[in-house]
Amino acid sequence: MTHTPANTQPYPFAKRVPAIPPIGAAQASSRSDTIPLSFGAPHSDTFPYDALNDAASEAILSQGRDALQYAGASGPSFLLDWIAARSARRAINVEPSQVLLTYGSQQAIDFAARTLLDPGDHAWVEAPTYFGAVSTFRTAEAVLTSFPIDADGLQTDEVEAALRAAVKTGKPIPKLLYVMPNFHNPGGVSLSLERRKKLAELAVEFNFFILEDDAYTELAFEEQALPSIYSFAPERVVYLSTFSKTIAPGIRLGWAIGSRDVISRMNTFFQGSKASVFSQEIVAQLLKKLPFEEHIAKLNGLYRANRDAMVSALKQYFGDDVRFEVPGGGFFVWLEFREDVDTSQFVQDAYERGVSFIHGKQFFVKPEGARFARLSFSYCDEERIHNGVKLLADAYYAYVDNK
Amino acid sequence: MTHTPANTQPYPFAKRVPAIPPIGAAQASSRSDTIPLSFGAPHSDTFPYDALNDAASEAILSQGRDALQYAGASGPSFLLDWIAARSARRAINVEPSQVLLTYGSQQAIDFAARTLLDPGDHAWVEAPTYFGAVSTFRTAEAVLTSFPIDADGLQTDEVEAALRAAVKTGKPIPKLLYVMPNFHNPGGVSLSLERRKKLAELAVEFNFFILEDDAYTELAFEEQALPSIYSFAPERVVYLSTFSKTIAPGIRLGWAIGSRDVISRMNTFFQGSKASVFSQEIVAQLLKKLPFEEHIAKLNGLYRANRDAMVSALKQYFGDDVRFEVPGGGFFVWLEFREDVDTSQFVQDAYERGVSFIHGKQFFVKPEGARFARLSFSYCDEERIHNGVKLLADAYYAYVDNK
Repeated sequence: MTHTPANTQPYPFAKRVPAIPPIGAAQASSRSDTIPLSFGAPHSDTFPYDALNDAASEAILSQGRDALQYAGASGPSFLLDWIAARSARRAINVEPSQVLLTYGSQQAIDFAARTLLDPGDHAWVEAPTYFGAVSTFRTAEAVLTSFPIDADGLQTDEVEAALRAAVKTGKPIPKLLYVMPNFHNPGGVSLSLERRKKLAELAVEFNFFILEDDAYTELAFEEQALPSIYSFAPERVVYLSTFSKTIAPGIRLGWAIGSRDVISRMNTFFQGSKASVFSQEIVAQLLKKLPFEEHIAKLNGLYRANRDAMVSALKQYFGDDVRFEVPGGGFFVWLEFREDVDTSQFVQDAYERGVSFIHGKQFFVKPEGARFARLSFSYCDEERIHNGVKLLADAYYAYVDNK
Repeated sequence: MTHTPANTQPYPFAKRVPAIPPIGAAQASSRSDTIPLSFGAPHSDTFPYDALNDAASEAILSQGRDALQYAGASGPSFLLDWIAARSARRAINVEPSQVLLTYGSQQAIDFAARTLLDPGDHAWVEAPTYFGAVSTFRTAEAVLTSFPIDADGLQTDEVEAALRAAVKTGKPIPKLLYVMPNFHNPGGVSLSLERRKKLAELAVEFNFFILEDDAYTELAFEEQALPSIYSFAPERVVYLSTFSKTIAPGIRLGWAIGSRDVISRMNTFFQGSKASVFSQEIVAQLLKKLPFEEHIAKLNGLYRANRDAMVSALKQYFGDDVRFEVPGGGFFVWLEFREDVDTSQFVQDAYERGVSFIHGKQFFVKPEGARFARLSFSYCDEERIHNGVKLLADAYYAYVDNK
């Protein structure tokens, strides 16, 4: 025999794959002539090219004998120290051993899901929420329930009511609650201090873990982000963040912070390996030399201007026909149109006119959210943002006029 | 509240973690004065430092605007083409879309396990086998059974007999069989051509997948490796390999090859992301310039000399008291002592004398293999290999004399 015989039987693949294909990548692709307001990616001007090049040379030529091996040189432990120290700004006080470096926070979500959830366990998420996390919870065979956000983030009174009702009626309590506290993707909003405390209390009272995904925390345009939920219940929160927005996403380094107990369990999935020690060495060498505060200030200057350009264009071209919260940081503006609008109905026309966005339904686990749309102001420059919003308005009013 | 209340309840973590902590990393660590014959790592002299440095500069300074983004520049697709072309040497004829780049082949094993195995499914492995794979199958909640190897690799007659007996008696058939065809870790042996064909036939007849882990395939000291098992049953094999042994392990890039069906399912676990596109760009730029055949020839010259040094020292210091197959490639010599020996009984004494190795029991899923030991000739130079084997003999004979 040299090739598959015709009588090959169908193979029973694991039930966990693939209930639903991942969202995002397809929508995020764009023709070169399209203004990609769908792109949730950093602006390429923010990458510290020269400093990265120096750091890579140091990692290869000076540290390479160890940095290119399995265990790495001193970069990985430098990074753990650096992250532990930096996390104090979120009121997180941890030892470096409580930090686990991962391939982007996407992998940390996967490790946390597999550590916290058995198949059939319940995970609660926000509505809207980040689709990458939803896909991961689905491959972990979790049962998903969602709770609405408003201008102050996740509506914790609804979460609390559902928990108390579940206990009364014998319904399942979640094992995990996934929440984005700062500059929510896609909502753009941040969780209030009171709600952070409330969520922490509920996690302890009802014995579930909070997965606190804080990817955008450094991108605060007006004032520093609030203390983390982690700071109010360190034994029941896994806190996640990433270098994807502050250095570069292609380097794929994120991290999880938690109790030693949960971090050592999550680390099981590395099977004795580590997230690329070579990439870690490069980032460590970079952070040794890069004036990080200046770098972040530069990023936030750029993104603030981009946000302002988007907000001003939205006001100019849409007037009162769209509602949104002005985000205090992050990458996204979350548009709410009137109730009978379905943004998926003009996403194709918009694309043909030259602008891409992500329609609302993609951010919900239930069939809802049709009147919403996510715009990103991170990847394009001010002029393209302005022109993109204008094209979006053209597509929107053509859609409304033809309804 | 500011910290965890005393009444925090125990949390019911997922059953899949951690049955058994990962092996390897702890044993692989060494004091600076110890000769680490336990290290299954490449020799640091084999890393192409200058070429890597040029490649990193190209990736950052010329390609960085895309290479540092989520989707990457052209490096990732170059690598898929390169791997597809190179795989023809293993009689693998595939499209680039049938190649999935992963964070080392360790991640490919994880993705394959999650794609092929539901909890409680059966996975068959070799005895001995690679402990990183075993840990991964355990976190996938697989039931493990092992089958012995000999000088021609996995004993496929035993596998076949077990399959036919299972069908007769209604016992479970495996969903996956994990095998290392070339320069086995730890066995050092290669699977014969007849057995490759037999395994492929069995996979089709009994409808299981073979996970063919071919990490050491390029490190062939005498003659080229045989055609892959994949080539005989492309619909029922996932083939794995890696740049860890040929370029550098710290870069963490491996790959899986399979049918479009299984590869697209495995890709689900990336959730729309990819293995670091920045690392991919560096490796792509490297491979565009590095004379790869010369590079591999240089590696194999070094490793062949190291192997010869180890074999000659083993003969000198152990005479007929140890048996082993002389490996035709790879990193390992697998020692078999007389039946009443337990190598775990002198691993500590050997370490105190200045040499580390991995004792046999760690490579088996059943409690067996005490009389074996794995030595690696890859990481140390010839002189240290010679001295390490001498110290090992000192520890061994002290153990035997005191039994």
